[in-house]
Amino acid sequence: MSLLLDGIGELTTHGPAGTLADAALVVEGGRVAWLGPSSRAPAADRRLDVDGRAVIPGFVDSHAHLVFAGDRAAEFAARMAGQPYTGGGIRTTVAATRAASDGQLRANLARLVGEARRQGTTTIEIKSGYGLTTGDEARCLRIAAEFTAETTYLGAHVVPEGQRPDEYVRLVCGQMLDAARPHARWVDVFCERGAFDADQSREVLRAGIAAGLGARIHANQLSAGEGVRIAVELGAASADHCTYLSTMDIDALAGSGTVATLLPGAEFSTRSPYPDGRALLDAGVTVALATDCNPGSSYTSSMPFCLALAVREMGMTPAEALWSATAGGARSLRRDDIGHLDVGARADLAVLDAPSHLHLAYRPGVPLMHTVLLNGEPI
Amino acid sequence: MSLLLDGIGELTTHGPAGTLADAALVVEGGRVAWLGPSSRAPAADRRLDVDGRAVIPGFVDSHAHLVFAGDRAAEFAARMAGQPYTGGGIRTTVAATRAASDGQLRANLARLVGEARRQGTTTIEIKSGYGLTTGDEARCLRIAAEFTAETTYLGAHVVPEGQRPDEYVRLVCGQMLDAARPHARWVDVFCERGAFDADQSREVLRAGIAAGLGARIHANQLSAGEGVRIAVELGAASADHCTYLSTMDIDALAGSGTVATLLPGAEFSTRSPYPDGRALLDAGVTVALATDCNPGSSYTSSMPFCLALAVREMGMTPAEALWSATAGGARSLRRDDIGHLDVGARADLAVLDAPSHLHLAYRPGVPLMHTVLLNGEPI
Repeated sequence: MSLLLDGIGELTTHGPAGTLADAALVVEGGRVAWLGPSSRAPAADRRLDVDGRAVIPGFVDSHAHLVFAGDRAAEFAARMAGQPYTGGGIRTTVAATRAASDGQLRANLARLVGEARRQGTTTIEIKSGYGLTTGDEARCLRIAAEFTAETTYLGAHVVPEGQRPDEYVRLVCGQMLDAARPHARWVDVFCERGAFDADQSREVLRAGIAAGLGARIHANQLSAGEGVRIAVELGAASADHCTYLSTMDIDALAGSGTVATLLPGAEFSTRSPYPDGRALLDAGVTVALATDCNPGSSYTSSMPFCLALAVREMGMTPAEALWSATAGGARSLRRDDIGHLDVGARADLAVLDAPSHLHLAYRPGVPLMHTVLLNGEPI
Repeated sequence: MSLLLDGIGELTTHGPAGTLADAALVVEGGRVAWLGPSSRAPAADRRLDVDGRAVIPGFVDSHAHLVFAGDRAAEFAARMAGQPYTGGGIRTTVAATRAASDGQLRANLARLVGEARRQGTTTIEIKSGYGLTTGDEARCLRIAAEFTAETTYLGAHVVPEGQRPDEYVRLVCGQMLDAARPHARWVDVFCERGAFDADQSREVLRAGIAAGLGARIHANQLSAGEGVRIAVELGAASADHCTYLSTMDIDALAGSGTVATLLPGAEFSTRSPYPDGRALLDAGVTVALATDCNPGSSYTSSMPFCLALAVREMGMTPAEALWSATAGGARSLRRDDIGHLDVGARADLAVLDAPSHLHLAYRPGVPLMHTVLLNGEPI
């Protein structure tokens, strides 16, 4: 069965075809089989006229913490009334997550993944990190793997209450890693004061890499530090947050294969200064945008919202922000089959209730998804 | 036919009943007929269990410019790349609006009103102001009146190209007012450098008041000025924007019956400093929140987005922001039948896909509407 999307007012491919007006696109076998001017569109089994709407690649949300129970709305309200964010509340979610059944975790995850998909997200990375025992980390990753291929082992999120850091790092790099590995593609660590220091972060990532996982890192979120340099040194796919960067950090990223993944939802919801997206782009760094969806510091699943923040607050153009939220995310996951709409790419795309991708930033907060295709099928 | 909403996890009434947990509410004849603890809920013809979700009064969006044609996405993108907002682009929309048929204007308006309703807005004020001829202003208001009782005559939006300001003010206060009056409840003026000065603004509002319209004013948006003082002096229901206020302006509002309507979507989309909601609340001013939805400076129809901005950027608590987006809007429209959920109030309400109203700010950008009732009926 082939599907012809016709009447596309603006088609953003992020590939050699660039951006086309009055375009059409054919989906077959879950892939893009053809694209070009509407006037030359081939026949297909089915035809959907999108009536001048814009079509974009589906969003690639490359940073989300979605396996958890409970919420922290009261902590959020207290923070908005003046309490600073320190990351300490993570332990609240750890307790709730450990106490939850598999069914409860799965239902909450299904709700959030569904919510993200309805907002145009067609690929989502999902981290563990609220289990922090061997059994709970493996369980969280096993459940995450039911929803995505992009699972990330984040046993090194914080040191759980009552444990010695050195002992916990040994666990994370040993028994817990062994249990997590069958369910994970990536390894991650929260490199920050109050979480894991530079040496511990290196140890965690090296153990994960040795076990066959790709590396990503929470770097330079709440303060300057070695996170970004470690990412580059170890060839991590992504350094995430990048809020407090030195010129040396930016230069290191620019000369590397590491993507800078910016998460403005976290700055919004913790009332923190935003990362300087413009400076990173101007230096030639590859930038991704993601939600950081989690119940503590950024409980948004909305990639359009993050894109609008990137334009308002981080000096990115709407086109750059869209690229980062799609192709940039794909780079940070080292995927070439998603985040763009060339022939052969996965038919993951969103039809917007708008004539142009500009509306994603121009119409902040407005649900603009008309149709979302995942693997060529409506969600 | 009566309807029992049961299983309400958190019911915000904004009335004497306050906020109730484990509550129920009965709708009959489009009004709230009963509310109280779920355990004492009376029988009704139909029953809807909302499964622990939060229920809030429907949003009252008391400032929106929705009768227009075209969009200004390119102007938005240029502004994000550094061009300042001056209000000059209004004339672009005037040209497109004049050229549009009634059917085109009606279709665009229906689309935007539907979009707003799906986001929980149950009352929306709609201004003219993109016609700027006697015929076009009357036409825009006539079409607006098909969608809302809260129509506002804004012939004094800008002076149209090629007209002398004094002549145009005479038209606005004379023939154009006569043509607008049958379709309008309110009169408004854009009091700002480049639009109408203090004397012209007084003249426009006085003429409208003499014709039986209530007064509202675009005041102190782009610079300090006399707008707020004029609002208080003339007993206007609302002074809108209030971005650049002196201590005297705040004191004047606090001692008046004029509501300060804040429109943070405009500051978001023009990259301007936000009004100081906290200072207004602390001074005892009645504050409303609205979208300012328009194709130039704030093309959002999302009250939840504006509420989240009020919390992040304007020092308001989630509860204050919710009050301002509902009861505050009602005050600015001098309505006591909407914006709250006491017995006898209109059954305009939103069931959130969340256990608490806090999620409106805690989950920015996420569509959280589960069910919206307008006059007791699902939209």
